[in-house]
Amino acid sequence: MKTDALIHDLGRIVGAEHVLEAAGHYLHDTTLTMGLRGEAEAVVRPGSTEEVAATVRHCYEHDVPIVPRGGGTGFAGGATPTQGGIVLSLERLARVRSFDPLLWRIEVEAGVRTHSVQRLARENGLAFPVDPGAAEESQIGGNIATNAGGPHCFKYGVMRAWVTGVEAVMAPGEIARFGGPVRKDVAGYDLLGLLCGSEGTLGIITAAWLRLIPAPPVSLAAAGFYSDAAAGQEAIEQLMASGVQPAAIEYLDAATLAICGATFPGGMPADAGFLVITEADTSEADFAELVEALGPGARTPDPRALWRWRDSVSLAVTVSRGGKLSDDIAVPVDRLAEAVERTVEIGRRHGLQACSWGHAGDGNLHSTFLLDPGEPAERRAANAAAEELFALAAELGGTISGEHGLGVLKNHKLSLQWSPAAVGAHDAVRGALDPKGLFNPGKKLA
Amino acid sequence: MKTDALIHDLGRIVGAEHVLEAAGHYLHDTTLTMGLRGEAEAVVRPGSTEEVAATVRHCYEHDVPIVPRGGGTGFAGGATPTQGGIVLSLERLARVRSFDPLLWRIEVEAGVRTHSVQRLARENGLAFPVDPGAAEESQIGGNIATNAGGPHCFKYGVMRAWVTGVEAVMAPGEIARFGGPVRKDVAGYDLLGLLCGSEGTLGIITAAWLRLIPAPPVSLAAAGFYSDAAAGQEAIEQLMASGVQPAAIEYLDAATLAICGATFPGGMPADAGFLVITEADTSEADFAELVEALGPGARTPDPRALWRWRDSVSLAVTVSRGGKLSDDIAVPVDRLAEAVERTVEIGRRHGLQACSWGHAGDGNLHSTFLLDPGEPAERRAANAAAEELFALAAELGGTISGEHGLGVLKNHKLSLQWSPAAVGAHDAVRGALDPKGLFNPGKKLA
Repeated sequence: MKTDALIHDLGRIVGAEHVLEAAGHYLHDTTLTMGLRGEAEAVVRPGSTEEVAATVRHCYEHDVPIVPRGGGTGFAGGATPTQGGIVLSLERLARVRSFDPLLWRIEVEAGVRTHSVQRLARENGLAFPVDPGAAEESQIGGNIATNAGGPHCFKYGVMRAWVTGVEAVMAPGEIARFGGPVRKDVAGYDLLGLLCGSEGTLGIITAAWLRLIPAPPVSLAAAGFYSDAAAGQEAIEQLMASGVQPAAIEYLDAATLAICGATFPGGMPADAGFLVITEADTSEADFAELVEALGPGARTPDPRALWRWRDSVSLAVTVSRGGKLSDDIAVPVDRLAEAVERTVEIGRRHGLQACSWGHAGDGNLHSTFLLDPGEPAERRAANAAAEELFALAAELGGTISGEHGLGVLKNHKLSLQWSPAAVGAHDAVRGALDPKGLFNPGKKLA
Repeated sequence: MKTDALIHDLGRIVGAEHVLEAAGHYLHDTTLTMGLRGEAEAVVRPGSTEEVAATVRHCYEHDVPIVPRGGGTGFAGGATPTQGGIVLSLERLARVRSFDPLLWRIEVEAGVRTHSVQRLARENGLAFPVDPGAAEESQIGGNIATNAGGPHCFKYGVMRAWVTGVEAVMAPGEIARFGGPVRKDVAGYDLLGLLCGSEGTLGIITAAWLRLIPAPPVSLAAAGFYSDAAAGQEAIEQLMASGVQPAAIEYLDAATLAICGATFPGGMPADAGFLVITEADTSEADFAELVEALGPGARTPDPRALWRWRDSVSLAVTVSRGGKLSDDIAVPVDRLAEAVERTVEIGRRHGLQACSWGHAGDGNLHSTFLLDPGEPAERRAANAAAEELFALAAELGGTISGEHGLGVLKNHKLSLQWSPAAVGAHDAVRGALDPKGLFNPGKKLA
């Protein structure tokens, strides 16, 4: 189909002013720092679920790839149009359809920012505890499509645990609703759960019903510095043995501390080789248990300052050499220290400075290789290092992606951790729900 | 395939002594009280995952239906062999493969009783908070296959939230593992979640990795009696507005209280028309808030006595007339009172005594029509009443099954709540993963 004709037809569906030239930020996500930018025939911004369905119908009929786009904050290239077609941005579906604070539930369109849901909840004495790193920019639809996580998922679970219903446009352009404002539903297969984390390859999420909980009574943070990853691992296991459920257990390794430890609230010890952060959100008494578990020298900085600092880590690491390749493997928690140490070794073998930080309680590392984006040799080295990292995750009984997804960066890697039968099931499900292969093609390939 | 030849071949796989004549309890679940009993060519009891795979391989090759069986405590006929073939019992897969209390995780085979997991957790200062009604008999595999719930799922979520990995035998007899001892994993589609609640129609779960949490510090229960469902609904909403997260919110309606209220610990008021039960598992202070929210007259019975009494409700209702048809619709919590009242009205229209009780906070009713199982006319009336009940659930924005599943009882009812596109996706997924339609055929039909 000719681009001009496509643009004309789509303009009749969503209004000509909402079919944009494919340019600027619509063509990439955060993997732009690794040079990943796509191309598309147009950006389409539907204003309603019906317009999304009509757009998909048109594209499905004319074999046009559809790349759904939320806030564009992904780390795996999932929103980057690598096979042409259209970028379908959900940004205009940004209404809160209903909010019942006394019933702990909210219905929002896909383009509502995750931060807005968190704020609305907070202003009403409630909490939406999923806290992905880019909550101020990321959108609910994208966060569901990647089944996003964050520090507090250690206690509260990832996005899937908070979605009771989705409205989605399925092939070849039909609106479907799975679940709703009801909190339990086992009538049909869990297609709601299947859409969570499907990265736009099985359908396009247009709205969601989310559940909320009463705001936790306290938010108290503590931090402990340790000589190395092994000692840090021990502190993490002490936290888990304390009898208290921490709201989060985070870590930074020595190399990450070398980059951003200087700005740690209150400063850090000169010999620090590993940092463990934890939070209690239940009571002062529970907090005291956690502080004790961290051992002598535990600190109790202002939680807001601490989390603000923690939020700055990713960017600080990026700017330290101008670019990075950051992966999000997860391993059984007792293998964390080993994964941390071997991340550094892998970098060393490839001539790259490596560091990691992340969600220790979930065994979820952000294993990172620093690079100068202007140096193709460094990018090649980082890609080679990433291959070793994925093999490491599989070797340790973990996963190549704890929260970012496959996107384009990890295509064809699933077989490292899944058997041929499991990979076959993955592909069969995809073929069943997107028979023409037009939903975000070239992404999340098993 | 001739039965004799089948039995001979299966005996070579699992040992002749583990291929039994299909008889007794292997041919039904709790729906036997409604006269539902199946037929099969044999009962096969594999002793390992490899034997399950070999059995499935043999059956898949010879077009023999496979009906997986856990504890047989289902309420929907999901384990009843209605289309012949073999019953594949997981009872011999009953090993705890690993248990790491300090790391909050356990790996168990499908035939381990859910109660055993709860007990192991408790004895180690931990909790496995999913508490389906028949935990002493039901098995982890079956509870995962039905995505089981229970009272404490109001706070802790259903089975899916506690499974980090499954081992399953997929068509045509291949072992696959989705997830594992890792707490976060978004690499592949959520096929683990898809298997949860699939009622044995997509694959046969042979083992699971479960996560655990530290045991809650307290367990304090309170109860309030109200004049009617509307007043009870108000109390439930007061609990949700208290700022505290209750561990459970249960209810019994007037007709249920008429049957089993007399044995309520400490007795019940003569004019009671609705009972609300709640539990705090966080602190004494939180408990005080919940007691206050229940209003004047709230009682604080011994939690053990209260839950023991609550556990006896289902059986007490059954024996009151000898039989019952009990469905498990769920509605948005603000529609609970309406669903309670209309359950009774539906029964009245069909000449049946009706009652309901259940998981109020989740809007999950056990809407029940009493019957004499020896009276075919009453069974017919109950089936007709159930049809109206399903329509009611859909009308109120709810689901025809909050926790029991479709089994055979609710075949072809999913279209009441799902659009044709959604039902189409359900069927497409099934066809993709069980192309020959041999996994628990005739169950969970959309």
